[in-house]
Amino acid sequence: MRATVMYGAGDVRVETVPDARLVEPTDALVTVTRSAICGSDLWPYKQMERSETGRRMGHEFIGVVEAVGDEVRTVKPGDVVVTPFVWSDGTCVFCREGLHTSCLHGGRYGFDGVDGGQGEAVRVPQADGTLVVLPVERDDALMPSLLTLSDVMATGHHAARSAEVGPGKTVAVVGDGAVGLCGVIASRRLGAERIIVLGRHPDRIALAKQFGATDVVSERGDEAVERVRELTDGFGAHSALECVGLEQSTVTALTIVRPGGAVGRVGVPQEESIPDAQPTFFDNVTIAGGPAPARAYIEELLPDVLEGRIEPGRVFDRVGPLDEVPDGYRAMDDREAIKVMIEL
Amino acid sequence: MRATVMYGAGDVRVETVPDARLVEPTDALVTVTRSAICGSDLWPYKQMERSETGRRMGHEFIGVVEAVGDEVRTVKPGDVVVTPFVWSDGTCVFCREGLHTSCLHGGRYGFDGVDGGQGEAVRVPQADGTLVVLPVERDDALMPSLLTLSDVMATGHHAARSAEVGPGKTVAVVGDGAVGLCGVIASRRLGAERIIVLGRHPDRIALAKQFGATDVVSERGDEAVERVRELTDGFGAHSALECVGLEQSTVTALTIVRPGGAVGRVGVPQEESIPDAQPTFFDNVTIAGGPAPARAYIEELLPDVLEGRIEPGRVFDRVGPLDEVPDGYRAMDDREAIKVMIEL
Repeated sequence: MRATVMYGAGDVRVETVPDARLVEPTDALVTVTRSAICGSDLWPYKQMERSETGRRMGHEFIGVVEAVGDEVRTVKPGDVVVTPFVWSDGTCVFCREGLHTSCLHGGRYGFDGVDGGQGEAVRVPQADGTLVVLPVERDDALMPSLLTLSDVMATGHHAARSAEVGPGKTVAVVGDGAVGLCGVIASRRLGAERIIVLGRHPDRIALAKQFGATDVVSERGDEAVERVRELTDGFGAHSALECVGLEQSTVTALTIVRPGGAVGRVGVPQEESIPDAQPTFFDNVTIAGGPAPARAYIEELLPDVLEGRIEPGRVFDRVGPLDEVPDGYRAMDDREAIKVMIEL
Repeated sequence: MRATVMYGAGDVRVETVPDARLVEPTDALVTVTRSAICGSDLWPYKQMERSETGRRMGHEFIGVVEAVGDEVRTVKPGDVVVTPFVWSDGTCVFCREGLHTSCLHGGRYGFDGVDGGQGEAVRVPQADGTLVVLPVERDDALMPSLLTLSDVMATGHHAARSAEVGPGKTVAVVGDGAVGLCGVIASRRLGAERIIVLGRHPDRIALAKQFGATDVVSERGDEAVERVRELTDGFGAHSALECVGLEQSTVTALTIVRPGGAVGRVGVPQEESIPDAQPTFFDNVTIAGGPAPARAYIEELLPDVLEGRIEPGRVFDRVGPLDEVPDGYRAMDDREAIKVMIEL
């Protein structure tokens, strides 16, 4: 089969790899119908050290179940399924608490002999705990939005939940990438009164406004903080969504939140420590978040997607076949595309 | 009047200062009957740069109202009152949200012309928003416990609340000082099933056990983390209370908490950044806390003190007159005393 392999920074290839197949009795074999490139894929695209064997890529996909192992009970061949970006057993103590990203028997796509999602097929371990059957046909018009449940919409939602977004609150979204845009959707969905998006790319800003952003701050750094304070009676936002992961964006998020507020961080941190230990302490700022337990959120978000109340699939501004994955990485890295969907 | 002034690291004196007096119409003049030395007073005791004018010390006290300004409505001469460790107006947006430590018109004792609490009398600004009248006589046997509502018990409670302590949870308390001990009381009060205290001083450990600690870990650093994991099926504690503020104790707190858990930090951070940005992210650990909004907590905790359900006053293991304040600092700094109460 064909799948995406990264060999080092900037070197992504679509090539022939061994066919995906069932290994464990808890596996499902899924033919991928839609896949996506994630903002987090850009970190290795920028930094990965050269590798002879390469690394299989992709962790967001929808597909059709081809076959299941003997112990699989909740999905069957022919089911259209979406996967969260990590697989999980659904039964361990952390899964039961809704934190599937810390599953005791879970893991990541593309590692330890498990296929990546940017390919023709995937062996999905722990299929019962991982996959969610979608009540649609494989080419339903809702596919882009359904695909975002795999990661980016769940991640925006996690940022908002972690930042304690709720009715009447003012939210500042740091990052106008696909996650930040989904953070806007999530904040509006959770009842935020005011949603300030920090960004400067006209197409992204336009989409943010359509998703519910009420204010735009195009300044950066200290000036952005100053501007958010002006917009919030000098206090700062109740909630800040850190959707980037760089030190500067983290400082911005920690600084634009008001006393007693919360920062939801979902950008993978690129530094070893969290800045501003003292100001956040004296202001009683809560710092929460991490990888989104997408599996827990899919059931909450799915009805809103199916009934058209949210349209996170609009973050995909480029669609192409599998062979265009390498150019998709380039386009996202150049900020030419917000997010790329792959149709198979 | 006599009051405590610090002139530099290790140099604390009790000396004659101008009498406290009403200045603003919102002030109350309070004759101090009980005061205390705080663990946070030890940071300047260790580090303060030499000062010619000195710094007035103390922010935990109980006293009797002598006089009030024209605009004061809720306290009157003769009332026995306790103060939170900061003063606040009780009416601003942050006070209304219960975050009196961020009051827009509040401030700290010992700064900006306001007396410190380790002295014979204090001008209390914003008396209506700050002081809580106690339904006891000035020499009631409950005084030590009532005095802890000023700071240390409220702070232990804030650590527990920030760390999301609740029924059935396992809590690890980092620090066996007075705050950590009050964190044990608070954790038990909030229904924690298991309370692991990290410490090695026999007298403190004995008290922690009486307060409800179920396990003691006397190791430090990595070994302490290992031991807590052994006690918690390898997962770590649901909640960790950081009651010290040093880098090592912060790392310990962040590391002994399990995925999805929360760290409540109440030790004043001595470093500029929070370590372990990445592990805490991947484990979805929440970091919360800061200065305790004692004013908000006094009403919650007071009935338990009055009815004897909690006895936080037992953290005072040394009592002396005002003149013994300097030796009290020394004794606490030498870890000879857990916490010192001053009787006036």
